[in-house]
Amino acid sequence: MSIQVPAQWRSALPYLDERLPEDRTPQTRAGGSVQVNLPMELARQSIQQKEFWDIPAPVQEAYRSFRPTPLWRASRFEQAIGSRVPIWVKYEGENISGSHKLNTALAQAYYYHKAGVRELVTGTGAGQWGTALAAACSLFGMRCTIFMVGTSLERKPYRGVLMRLLGAEVHASPTTLTDVARQSGGQGNSLSLAIGEAVEYAARTSGAAFCIGSGENYSILHQSVIGLEAAEQLAEHEAEVDAVIGCVGAGSNFGGLALPFYTEAKASGGTMPRLVAAESSSTPKLTKGVYAYDKTDATGTSPLEAMYTIGSDYSIPDSHSAGLRYHGAAKLISALRHQGYVDAVAVDQVTALECGRVFTQTQTVLPAPESCHALAAAARLATSGAGDLRAERGILVCVSGHGYLDLGAYQQLLDGTLRDQAPSPAALLAAVSGLAPVDSPARQS
Amino acid sequence: MSIQVPAQWRSALPYLDERLPEDRTPQTRAGGSVQVNLPMELARQSIQQKEFWDIPAPVQEAYRSFRPTPLWRASRFEQAIGSRVPIWVKYEGENISGSHKLNTALAQAYYYHKAGVRELVTGTGAGQWGTALAAACSLFGMRCTIFMVGTSLERKPYRGVLMRLLGAEVHASPTTLTDVARQSGGQGNSLSLAIGEAVEYAARTSGAAFCIGSGENYSILHQSVIGLEAAEQLAEHEAEVDAVIGCVGAGSNFGGLALPFYTEAKASGGTMPRLVAAESSSTPKLTKGVYAYDKTDATGTSPLEAMYTIGSDYSIPDSHSAGLRYHGAAKLISALRHQGYVDAVAVDQVTALECGRVFTQTQTVLPAPESCHALAAAARLATSGAGDLRAERGILVCVSGHGYLDLGAYQQLLDGTLRDQAPSPAALLAAVSGLAPVDSPARQS
Repeated sequence: MSIQVPAQWRSALPYLDERLPEDRTPQTRAGGSVQVNLPMELARQSIQQKEFWDIPAPVQEAYRSFRPTPLWRASRFEQAIGSRVPIWVKYEGENISGSHKLNTALAQAYYYHKAGVRELVTGTGAGQWGTALAAACSLFGMRCTIFMVGTSLERKPYRGVLMRLLGAEVHASPTTLTDVARQSGGQGNSLSLAIGEAVEYAARTSGAAFCIGSGENYSILHQSVIGLEAAEQLAEHEAEVDAVIGCVGAGSNFGGLALPFYTEAKASGGTMPRLVAAESSSTPKLTKGVYAYDKTDATGTSPLEAMYTIGSDYSIPDSHSAGLRYHGAAKLISALRHQGYVDAVAVDQVTALECGRVFTQTQTVLPAPESCHALAAAARLATSGAGDLRAERGILVCVSGHGYLDLGAYQQLLDGTLRDQAPSPAALLAAVSGLAPVDSPARQS
Repeated sequence: MSIQVPAQWRSALPYLDERLPEDRTPQTRAGGSVQVNLPMELARQSIQQKEFWDIPAPVQEAYRSFRPTPLWRASRFEQAIGSRVPIWVKYEGENISGSHKLNTALAQAYYYHKAGVRELVTGTGAGQWGTALAAACSLFGMRCTIFMVGTSLERKPYRGVLMRLLGAEVHASPTTLTDVARQSGGQGNSLSLAIGEAVEYAARTSGAAFCIGSGENYSILHQSVIGLEAAEQLAEHEAEVDAVIGCVGAGSNFGGLALPFYTEAKASGGTMPRLVAAESSSTPKLTKGVYAYDKTDATGTSPLEAMYTIGSDYSIPDSHSAGLRYHGAAKLISALRHQGYVDAVAVDQVTALECGRVFTQTQTVLPAPESCHALAAAARLATSGAGDLRAERGILVCVSGHGYLDLGAYQQLLDGTLRDQAPSPAALLAAVSGLAPVDSPARQS
């Protein structure tokens, strides 16, 4: 590999057709907005129409311990699935957190540390974000407190061990430590509740700040290293792709991979590849949700954001892809979907993991269940005979993490006990019925 | 990284002070030697005094998917332990098998496949070798059958899932499939029993061959890529080391790392770094064993080899470092120990895993419990105030694998329930009392 770790992140914000809809104050509680101590640089990265952002030297140095991440052609996988086109894999699993989440964890820990914060508090679903933040806090000498979705922690206790090993304090959410957990009575979207607990806990802990791994414009900006590297690596291979695919929880690995291609095409006037978001059929916000103002967590005190959502109150069924178990898509990804730049495919977990099994056997890389959704979407575009969602020249797909701590899911696949749990139309309708739609007219996409 | 994957393995055999002692026919059963269908090239690699061996092109190509493996300076770890000297880490954990074992698995699968073998059968303790062989068989389109130590499989069920995911058939040993298991009555060294089961199963299965991951001269030869790369990488960093350290089960990662330094010093007349084998205090063959002829497995039909051993009949206590739970050291490593070229340090698992915890926090790389023994030995040489085992200029240490499937061990460490189980002097004495010593006079080392 002769390419370098990028020295700058690249933002898509200056190239949107329309500005992002403003956040709204929640109407459920009067003046209830939580004071969030967001470091100035992260606030600027969220809103400024600036294209290139220097990566601070200590973050670049930390990146160099695991970046550039590998990109390779999955030839044996192509052969096994009967692909028409080359499939290029960008692999983000080879770091202590086991996923792309470390890209933003390091940046955030750096900015918070510089702002004088001594403890970072967060919520995590699959545990990859929690692990990444624990690792980043360890590097910058900060305390780290993590609220992990209890059902997920129970299923993957070793995620908790790894975070503790990295020095973090780990709580199974719902806990008895917060009002939001007490008031929820154990109901609602469990990741947004874990996040809500973290928000509340941070707000009343001296020297602490809440931070979040996905969904914010700045976290997607930090992830742009994925796509920037991939573009260079593809050029090195003289490879061309007409589809770029990532799985979507809130959208940070998808955004990190895909938006540099969006931005480059907008900036240069070049051809834009199809940008394909692969979501879980158990949380089908992009394929079956609505574009509306919804809550990002269960506190009800954070701003309402314009997003594709299946409703923040919808009780998402348990699944092995905890990283995709989020009710909404990031506002930036949602806006691009709304503006017609993002396609979406929903994949069920049996199809996803079976695809992961084939990938493991052929490529000897074990993908996380979340990433298997992206691989299954790639397989669909690579083999489909007709229709819109079809790649003709080549596919770039992000394998966002490894599956070493998810082998229980693969065990169910091998034993034939894995099942799908897509929501019923009635349940979805009920969950979104109270939301305010985003005002601008929706385009078909 | 500008260095290339080596095109040749390098053998230490031409540079031994004395030839290796010949294997002996077991005396326990008349004419009982099992017919082993060893491919000609592996047989040649075991005995010929040839220094450089071309790596076959398909093996080189497979290597390139995960090699060169990274080498870096563990500066934050040095700081945390108060090291006097730079500590350089060669990390072999970033491949599907999670350890160095893939280096020889690929080579062996290639040679057996070329020889017309359609199924490889093996025994595995920690499961890293089994995973590596399953991956290699998958690549070369061969069947793979694995006998894994039952207590180890119970502790790490996901190792079994990963092997099955790679297409292998996995049995918990002792099984009811073999005579050797039935006759053992569940007694004895469990890894040698698993190996014994595999030997028997392969012998009576058409198109199948038994193969083994560690201990043979050819497997140590295949592992020489580790040390060859490391020497080049150190030169790139203009770094000098006077101690080279690896953990020892039978000795393949230690041999792979250290012997290229031995060979180069012998060939060039240069200074040889201290070669330090880090073993588990629960299997202290190099520090407390005898140099004698002993069995390599529980069948009693394989040749007796000259090795440092605590006795193949010694019932090794359960431990988290299943990869170190082997009664003897490879004959090549044993001979070099006997000739005074190899130092040894025994490390207990609490010390090892605590060192691994510090390493994880400071370097954000999670080492396997086995590898933690090497790190603990490195820490001792890097900080000891006096005595022979002391590094003055720099240390090279192999982290042979990752610990993602060993988090149960770290959990016990964090919870304070991890215990050591060193054998009593009386038990050791009883286990080795029937063995024939190797004839040449022992030197003090």
